[in-house]
Amino acid sequence: MRDVVIIGVGMTRFGRFLDRSPQDLGREAIWNAIEDANIPLKQIQVAYVGNAVGAQLNELKGTIGQHVLTTAGIDSIPVTNVENACSSASSALRLAALEVASGNHDIALAVGVEKMYTGDTAKAAASMASGTPYAKYGFTFVAEYALNLRKWMRKYPAVKVEHFAKVVVKNSKNGSLNPYAQFRKPLSVEDVLHSRMVANPLTLYMCSGIGDGSAAAIVCTKKIARKYTSKPLIEVAACELLSGTYTYPDEAHEACSSRAAKQAYERAGIGPEDVNVAEVHDAMAPAELKLYEELGFCQEGESARMIDEGRTMINGTIPVNPSGGLAAKGHPVGATGLAQIAEIVWQLRGEAGDRQVSNPKVGLTQNQGGLVVGDNAACVVTILKK
Amino acid sequence: MRDVVIIGVGMTRFGRFLDRSPQDLGREAIWNAIEDANIPLKQIQVAYVGNAVGAQLNELKGTIGQHVLTTAGIDSIPVTNVENACSSASSALRLAALEVASGNHDIALAVGVEKMYTGDTAKAAASMASGTPYAKYGFTFVAEYALNLRKWMRKYPAVKVEHFAKVVVKNSKNGSLNPYAQFRKPLSVEDVLHSRMVANPLTLYMCSGIGDGSAAAIVCTKKIARKYTSKPLIEVAACELLSGTYTYPDEAHEACSSRAAKQAYERAGIGPEDVNVAEVHDAMAPAELKLYEELGFCQEGESARMIDEGRTMINGTIPVNPSGGLAAKGHPVGATGLAQIAEIVWQLRGEAGDRQVSNPKVGLTQNQGGLVVGDNAACVVTILKK
Repeated sequence: MRDVVIIGVGMTRFGRFLDRSPQDLGREAIWNAIEDANIPLKQIQVAYVGNAVGAQLNELKGTIGQHVLTTAGIDSIPVTNVENACSSASSALRLAALEVASGNHDIALAVGVEKMYTGDTAKAAASMASGTPYAKYGFTFVAEYALNLRKWMRKYPAVKVEHFAKVVVKNSKNGSLNPYAQFRKPLSVEDVLHSRMVANPLTLYMCSGIGDGSAAAIVCTKKIARKYTSKPLIEVAACELLSGTYTYPDEAHEACSSRAAKQAYERAGIGPEDVNVAEVHDAMAPAELKLYEELGFCQEGESARMIDEGRTMINGTIPVNPSGGLAAKGHPVGATGLAQIAEIVWQLRGEAGDRQVSNPKVGLTQNQGGLVVGDNAACVVTILKK
Repeated sequence: MRDVVIIGVGMTRFGRFLDRSPQDLGREAIWNAIEDANIPLKQIQVAYVGNAVGAQLNELKGTIGQHVLTTAGIDSIPVTNVENACSSASSALRLAALEVASGNHDIALAVGVEKMYTGDTAKAAASMASGTPYAKYGFTFVAEYALNLRKWMRKYPAVKVEHFAKVVVKNSKNGSLNPYAQFRKPLSVEDVLHSRMVANPLTLYMCSGIGDGSAAAIVCTKKIARKYTSKPLIEVAACELLSGTYTYPDEAHEACSSRAAKQAYERAGIGPEDVNVAEVHDAMAPAELKLYEELGFCQEGESARMIDEGRTMINGTIPVNPSGGLAAKGHPVGATGLAQIAEIVWQLRGEAGDRQVSNPKVGLTQNQGGLVVGDNAACVVTILKK
């Protein structure tokens, strides 16, 4: 298989844009990526478009990718719409990379787009609960997270709600430095702990909100990339997708994200100790702590100390979510995976402005989505190298 | 890229199954394909699942593929949900074939599933109109087909409504011979012409209905296939996806299906004259005539004579839709593309029973979906060889 590099990325600011369509959001992200890559629009040979809840919330309920692309001025190429819940965009990137790696096409586009603010917030919230047959019994994503957290806190009594709050404090501070972020107000531990309880122990500020936005990436071979750009090329060293197991409760069960990470490290020929910056799926803030362990950034049971010691802050040993993460940057679900990718590309190129991590060489993204009981339906771990 | 063969196919009967879930339909198709391939369930390494309108009609609104697969007993592999409207299943097959061709995986599963009967037929019909921003002005699929047909009939006055009826007569007869078909009553020209007018010149029996069903195919390399089965191996010689152009009205415009077919013939190293049997997307019966021309089975303006002379009947020179096509076999949209593939595999193996075409060596499927004004959003043309 051929080496694959990211030649350009782009995104919209994440936010609440009642007057904008998914087509318009997608167009902006694509044009930003096209401009970043310095590549003519007509060079795009194949595209994958991630979108999760458009069929439930938007007027356009199918073939959204084709409509986004024609709006951006791209047609007559192979276009496939991809849905893997909150990991739709990273699943789209995986396929764009496969097209190039395989030699099937030379230049591929991955787009993620989501439009959740429609004037009916309850409907948007309900759309997030619809990927599981158990939602009707109240077993929503938040409930699932809360239950798993309480189990985890019983196993590791050193883990306190204050640790969850510290994750939000870190990410809100990072988000305040990111012009693309939806929520830019830095929060204190007290702000987080005193915000409204959603599902014990999860308070409002520990949960990501709904949002509108789009992100895109263009991938190609190294040789082709050098025809268009002199910017640092970012190699896709691994992009591994796995579905979860349907085995709740099972103590021996290894989480989808942990298994996907192991596969990704093996494919990239590195270990977790080589990662200099990461964007992870903090749909609920405490999940970020769990991910420190599942991704191998620390040993099991050590994540609370990680956050206490500030090791995942922008100036820490392994900065996590310098963009602000889902909590602060926002979480338009079908766009999130590629927004993570855009952030890591900017970090590796040294273009991340006020939130720049010191000279990273290797970055990782972890993006998960959906729910089969006991695990996520899908998880994608991507490793990017400068 | 490596050669890819289909080692097994399976489907449910298409029909109205109010008491069955998409998960249960998908499970049946997968298990049938697994049995046909004689391959253990645990050998499946990667899966793509096509579904078009589930998020609008079904309780489970996301990650349907993961839920179908866990129901069938498959988890912990990369699973991606694919939506390209009525061409979702063939788009899933294309990706399964790319996984094997590229060497990324050795054994891949493609599934298409759709559950449209939910007790609310109006809602199901509305879901079919939701892939275009123009549906709210009454510009539905049927209206689009009807408008294009009238334009076509003006250009070729030899094309009469009786020709459209003859397509339905042929396909309903074929469907009456197919145990998987939803509608098994043979129709006469009078039945078709006297059925209710939907959008002039389209009468009810010229339009495909709604349906429930699933179909699946397993692809792998030839070498691996021979470890499991002694059945004839069916090579995927081409599987080409294209999106349409957004250029209505444009006389010089070349239809998506025509362009996809040319690409497929080139990739497979054959011409239309080499095709011995075809399954095409007769969502509206007259479209089948147009497709004879777009796929190169006859010259432009000659398709009416094709049907008059019976050349596309099961015993004709180029049998088209021996399964009964969308009109008679049924059209659970997200399953259709793989049901076409299953039919061609059975035909090439000589397993098609009462509807068997005489000793075909090369088969073609054409599956299209969605609507960008002036063209289909997506079209997949697949060429299979014994």
